[in-house]
Formats: sequence, structure tokens, C-alpha cells
Amino acid sequence: MKFQPRLAIIGFGAFGQLIARHLRPHLPVFVCDPRHRANDLPHISLTEAAACDIIVLAVPLPQFEPVLRQIAPHLRPGATVMDVASVKIGPAEAMERILPGHVEIIATHPLFGPESARDGIAGHRIAWCPLRGAGHRRIGALLRVMGLDLVRTTPDQHDRDMAVVQGLTHLIARSLDRLEPQTTRLTTASFRRLSEAVAMVRADSPELLHTILAENPHAGPVRQQFLAAAIHLDKAG
Amino acid sequence: MKFQPRLAIIGFGAFGQLIARHLRPHLPVFVCDPRHRANDLPHISLTEAAACDIIVLAVPLPQFEPVLRQIAPHLRPGATVMDVASVKIGPAEAMERILPGHVEIIATHPLFGPESARDGIAGHRIAWCPLRGAGHRRIGALLRVMGLDLVRTTPDQHDRDMAVVQGLTHLIARSLDRLEPQTTRLTTASFRRLSEAVAMVRADSPELLHTILAENPHAGPVRQQFLAAAIHLDKAG
Repeated sequence: MKFQPRLAIIGFGAFGQLIARHLRPHLPVFVCDPRHRANDLPHISLTEAAACDIIVLAVPLPQFEPVLRQIAPHLRPGATVMDVASVKIGPAEAMERILPGHVEIIATHPLFGPESARDGIAGHRIAWCPLRGAGHRRIGALLRVMGLDLVRTTPDQHDRDMAVVQGLTHLIARSLDRLEPQTTRLTTASFRRLSEAVAMVRADSPELLHTILAENPHAGPVRQQFLAAAIHLDKAG
Repeated sequence: MKFQPRLAIIGFGAFGQLIARHLRPHLPVFVCDPRHRANDLPHISLTEAAACDIIVLAVPLPQFEPVLRQIAPHLRPGATVMDVASVKIGPAEAMERILPGHVEIIATHPLFGPESARDGIAGHRIAWCPLRGAGHRRIGALLRVMGLDLVRTTPDQHDRDMAVVQGLTHLIARSLDRLEPQTTRLTTASFRRLSEAVAMVRADSPELLHTILAENPHAGPVRQQFLAAAIHLDKAG
């Protein structure tokens, strides 16, 4: 009989629900969330979740450290703890600092969401930072079977890249969104691409926006570089 | 025998060459440009160009008024003068002010260029502002036969729309272009759309950039609205 690791998802918001749907055909999935109970997956307590083989933290960032502290005493030797936060330096540092030495740690950032993965997760990317232990090989293999493209990186490099990729996309999209809506047929191909980008991130939560803009230490300097260039062009114009 | 109006293109830069290629199967096309002579279309002087039935002005904006003054005395009654500038308030005002009352005037802005119309102009849009006379009907019908989508508007409404559509796209694209190049595989679908928009306008000339940023009276206020929103978000972040 094949070993079937039990996987707990702590935090059952939009993203937790998305990954539960894709993981449950592959292994037993349990859910832990004080608020969301309306589904057919078994709900367990935080202590029970900590006793699983793989623990996925999908909680909002303000709850990240409190949850780490609560599960830390109950984690079993050889268990793997993973996060899915949109920034990596802070969560990686917190996991390494708070979790006991006998658990393995992977920091990840799935580069998709309920909107972009509406038709499935195959072909989508996930930033992949194994921090401790070798358990990431088995879990990585499963994610590849599910069609994900694992991009190996470090928390610092991830946040540097995302300061541009997510930080500026969201800054630009939100700023464009505050202008009066465009109803004109006078559009160019490049403006249509820009509008598509805006539409893609419009539904993202205020919490995600805050995480991307404020919790990535590289985001501020990149934004200021971009704004300085834009202000310079504005004055030249 | 069908009447075949003779069409002169004044200014044979990248855009003049593009429209010449698409117009020549439909009517006799002549070219007037002091610099570009290397092609198989008949070259004529500015005075000869002014004596044609349809005169298309495709000169850089700084040459716009000087050329209008030079052709004005030689234009025939019933001739149609059209421009293709990326802004419309200024050129429309100049044409109405400088051209004699016996010529018809259409202000236009084709929303495509050598890059986006590489595979043809069918399906592309052109902003269409008939300012004087009824000659626009016959010429408009020809452009529709060529597959263009004519969007009827006024110079003021055009410039309002373009302050967002072109002004912000170029501001954002040029500002992003000044950051270090992204070589990461860690991209999102929305960032890829944004990068495509940047790539589309990267090859545009400095003259076009200046026209879009500086010659559209609505562009400055729209840019400042956008920048204020971005600076506000940056500070909140």
C-alpha cells in the first residue's frame, strides 16, 4: 500500500478553496478555518491540523505568525510546512524562526489565483523555495504531475522579481482604475493589453494589495524608481 | 469611365509609406517628401501635390503649419485635405484656419502603425472627424472597402480619449522601460499583458512620443490624475 500523506489546509479563503479542489483527487485533504465550514471536506482543529504530514498555510498575512506559534508545539518530526503567501522574505524568515528544527519547510508563491486558474492550474507557475529538509522533492513531484511549473528561487530573489511583476502591475492597475471609465471605441492594441492587465487584478482583495505593496521590502524602492521616471516624462511632456 | 481621384501623400516617413502601400491598388498615388525618394511611386513637388484631388498630410507635427501655408495657395476648389496626426485639436484648428474655404477638410487619426498593421490594415480603426464639405463620404467608403473601422468623433473628444489611451500607455510603457530588464520566469498573466503593451510602443519614435505627451491639451491633466493616484497608493503601501 502506497503511503498517503495527510494534508491540512489552514485558512480556507478563496485560495485555500482553490488548492483544496485540485489537491483532493491526489491525497486526503483536511481543512482548518474558524470561519469557513460550508463544504464537504473534513474540518479539523488547529491542533489536529498541526499533526498532519503536510501543512499548507493559506491564512492572511496578519495571522501568519500567530498561527505558526499555535501549531509549532504540535508539529510531528518529519512533517512539512508550506506557505503560499504573495511575499516570501517575511514568511520564510518567520517559518525558520518559529517552527521546530524537526519539521521541513518550503516557502512557495503560486502565481495564479481563482481568476487566472478558472480553467485549471495546469501550465501555471509556482515560485518554489525549499528552506529545510528534502520533503520538497516528493511534494514538488506531485505538483508537477498536476501540471504546475515549479520555478526554483530564493525568498529575496522572489521579492525582488515580484516588486516589479506584482508591485508595479497592481500600482498601475489601481491607479488606472481610479480614472473615469473609458467607454470609447478609440482604443489601440497596446491600450487593450493594458486594460486586460487591469481587469485581471481588479478583483484581488484589499489584503492582497496591501501584502504586495507593503510587505515586500523591495516593492517601495521599485515603485519610487517607476514614479520618478513617470514624473520626469510628465514634466518633459 | 470611373473618376479616379489623384491622391498625394505629403511626408513619406514610416506611416506615409504604410498608407501608400495600402492605397495604391485603389487609386493613383503620388509622393512628396524632400528626403525620401527611394521607391517606385511617382515623386512630385509640393505645388504639384497641392493640385491633386486628395492631399494626405503625413508630416511631423512641427512641419504641419508650414506645409499648410505652402500648399494653401495651390489647392483646387473641391479638393480634400486630410491629416493623420496623433492629436486632433491642434491640427484641426490649423487646417480650418489656414486652408482656403473652397477645399474640404477631414481630420483623422489612424489607430495603427507599421508594427500593429504588419499583417494588414483590415479590422483596424481610424478616428474620423469630417470638418468641412461632403467629400468624406466617398473617401470614407473607400477606407471601409479596405477593411478599416471608421470611428466618427470630434477633435476635442478624440484628444480626451487619447489622453488616456495613448498618453497613459506611453507614459507607463516608457517608465517601465527605464527599469532594469526583467529576466525572471516568475511572471503573472497580468504582468505579461503589461509587457506586451510596453513592447508594442517601444519602437515608436521620439517625435510621436512628444506629440502624444505634449501636443494633446488633455494629456497633462490626465497624467497628473494618474500620477496622483499612484503616489497616493505608493504612500499607503
